[in-house]
Amino acid sequence: MKINSLSEITHLIQNELDQFNVFFKQSLKSKVGLLDLVTRYILKQKGKKVRPVLVLLSSKLAGEVNERSYRGAILVELLHTATLVHDDVVDNAETRRSFPSINAVWKNKVAVLMGDYLLARGLMLAVEGNDFDFLKVITNTVKRMSEGELLQISKTRKLDNDEETYFRIISDKTASLLTTCCEIGARASTTDEQKILALKNYGENLGIAFQIRDDILDYIGTTKLFGKPLGGDIREKKLTLPLIYTLKNSSSDDSKHIIKLIKNGGKKLDVKDVIEYVKKSGGIDYAEKVSREYAQKAIDSLAIFDKSEIRVALESLVQFVVDRNT
Amino acid sequence: MKINSLSEITHLIQNELDQFNVFFKQSLKSKVGLLDLVTRYILKQKGKKVRPVLVLLSSKLAGEVNERSYRGAILVELLHTATLVHDDVVDNAETRRSFPSINAVWKNKVAVLMGDYLLARGLMLAVEGNDFDFLKVITNTVKRMSEGELLQISKTRKLDNDEETYFRIISDKTASLLTTCCEIGARASTTDEQKILALKNYGENLGIAFQIRDDILDYIGTTKLFGKPLGGDIREKKLTLPLIYTLKNSSSDDSKHIIKLIKNGGKKLDVKDVIEYVKKSGGIDYAEKVSREYAQKAIDSLAIFDKSEIRVALESLVQFVVDRNT
Repeated sequence: MKINSLSEITHLIQNELDQFNVFFKQSLKSKVGLLDLVTRYILKQKGKKVRPVLVLLSSKLAGEVNERSYRGAILVELLHTATLVHDDVVDNAETRRSFPSINAVWKNKVAVLMGDYLLARGLMLAVEGNDFDFLKVITNTVKRMSEGELLQISKTRKLDNDEETYFRIISDKTASLLTTCCEIGARASTTDEQKILALKNYGENLGIAFQIRDDILDYIGTTKLFGKPLGGDIREKKLTLPLIYTLKNSSSDDSKHIIKLIKNGGKKLDVKDVIEYVKKSGGIDYAEKVSREYAQKAIDSLAIFDKSEIRVALESLVQFVVDRNT
Repeated sequence: MKINSLSEITHLIQNELDQFNVFFKQSLKSKVGLLDLVTRYILKQKGKKVRPVLVLLSSKLAGEVNERSYRGAILVELLHTATLVHDDVVDNAETRRSFPSINAVWKNKVAVLMGDYLLARGLMLAVEGNDFDFLKVITNTVKRMSEGELLQISKTRKLDNDEETYFRIISDKTASLLTTCCEIGARASTTDEQKILALKNYGENLGIAFQIRDDILDYIGTTKLFGKPLGGDIREKKLTLPLIYTLKNSSSDDSKHIIKLIKNGGKKLDVKDVIEYVKKSGGIDYAEKVSREYAQKAIDSLAIFDKSEIRVALESLVQFVVDRNT
């Protein structure tokens, strides 16, 4: 059994994904014309649906995909979409997945309300389905995601991030939702707490590996056509793992100099210089090593499950995450 | 029994309100420094706490104030605060209750995240307390509030509001949360569905009367020192009850002329002219009449309860709402 691409993974649960898409569309129907217009616009921008895929795969690994799995998948996708819509407001983003962002088309007011609506819609589905366990998990996740982002903002302002806080931030802002996908998927199809815990651990470690890789990609590779330019985190004064390692392992003078450069920002800051310095100091290598360690932990978490196509798919997903260049 | 002011009402449940304030403060404690800073800032701006007061009074009228009443009161206050924080972002408001707004002090990013955090925190409390009935009510309310606001925005853009849609908008965006306060308060202390329904009806009618009064105040009275200037709704192209009535009862030529004036906006639009025309056409009188009808319905809803200090307090609250000049 070998899986070579993300599309091979989604192919394994194509029927379930098709069913999910039907339900997801239904969940977004509204009698308010403007709401319907905006949600139809959102539906046109087909994302990779990583989160619903995780819910469905987890459900299938722990038991069988059922009604609750679909509700869980819709819940996390609605929450994720709400987050993206709000993110674009806070970042003043003009585009999302090469489409103009909702705030760009309909202004901030509509975008903030739309995010609130999508979140409420997701929670209502869980309430209507009596999925009290999902609500417990998801409300804590929303709280952790906003806490993580706010912690990141305060560390950004002070430019004093350390490794411990970095891991707390990425666990809260990124890994928590992926963990939730796996937990909800598992809870939908089993009551075996050992299996649920294994899938939660998988999600948490996958999420950490994913975010470290994301932060590495800010330092390496070529400027992407539609993506963020290299060094964006440096310009935004975000200290991520490669730089945190570098600062800790440089002479005090060098560290102070880099911090000063980043702090002052503006035209004088040549991010290429910082990137080169981080590369030379082994910051990238270190972050890649750590990312692979978390990836391995994610894979190891699945050891309690019998070897199956679905288990291989989840293992391969981890590999794609840490190997990806975009 | 006669109650002459809002403070006499709150005085009736002063002990419970003090207890509420202690619990509310506790619910906002966070390990994230920035979060703690922002929430302490919010706590300094003591609002009128109308929504917790409604929860506590409803609980007391239907039975006894208990742990669940407090959780309900915190839940609605957190949700209301989240809404205000988001509102200030979407309106680019610089101040709130004479304090600089959160977006003005900490930027939009923090304000949007803070709103999400407060909402999640409230829902978590309900989850932790196993208040599944509260969750059912509150998630539907969040959905209705955003739907109402979005419907208002689309009507504002098209300038084609009618009375039916107006009532749908104010029921969703304003009355729904007040209804929820009364319902949650009642559910906390009784399982008697007749009492719960009576208090829900009270809240809904109170909410409608409140919003109509709010919309009237945009036309009458003097420019407030710290408040919105007169005619703000007209400038924002919001058609509310006084104007909707006026347009419907004017000659087709007059209506078209006013709509054109409002549509073009800018310096040419003298809101005083529009206000005068609405007054002369009886738009204010009509809106006041309707507002008082809803107020009476709210009072009548309480008829099933024995006459008591608390019932009188709730009845008086309705009077204050429709009589207020600010």
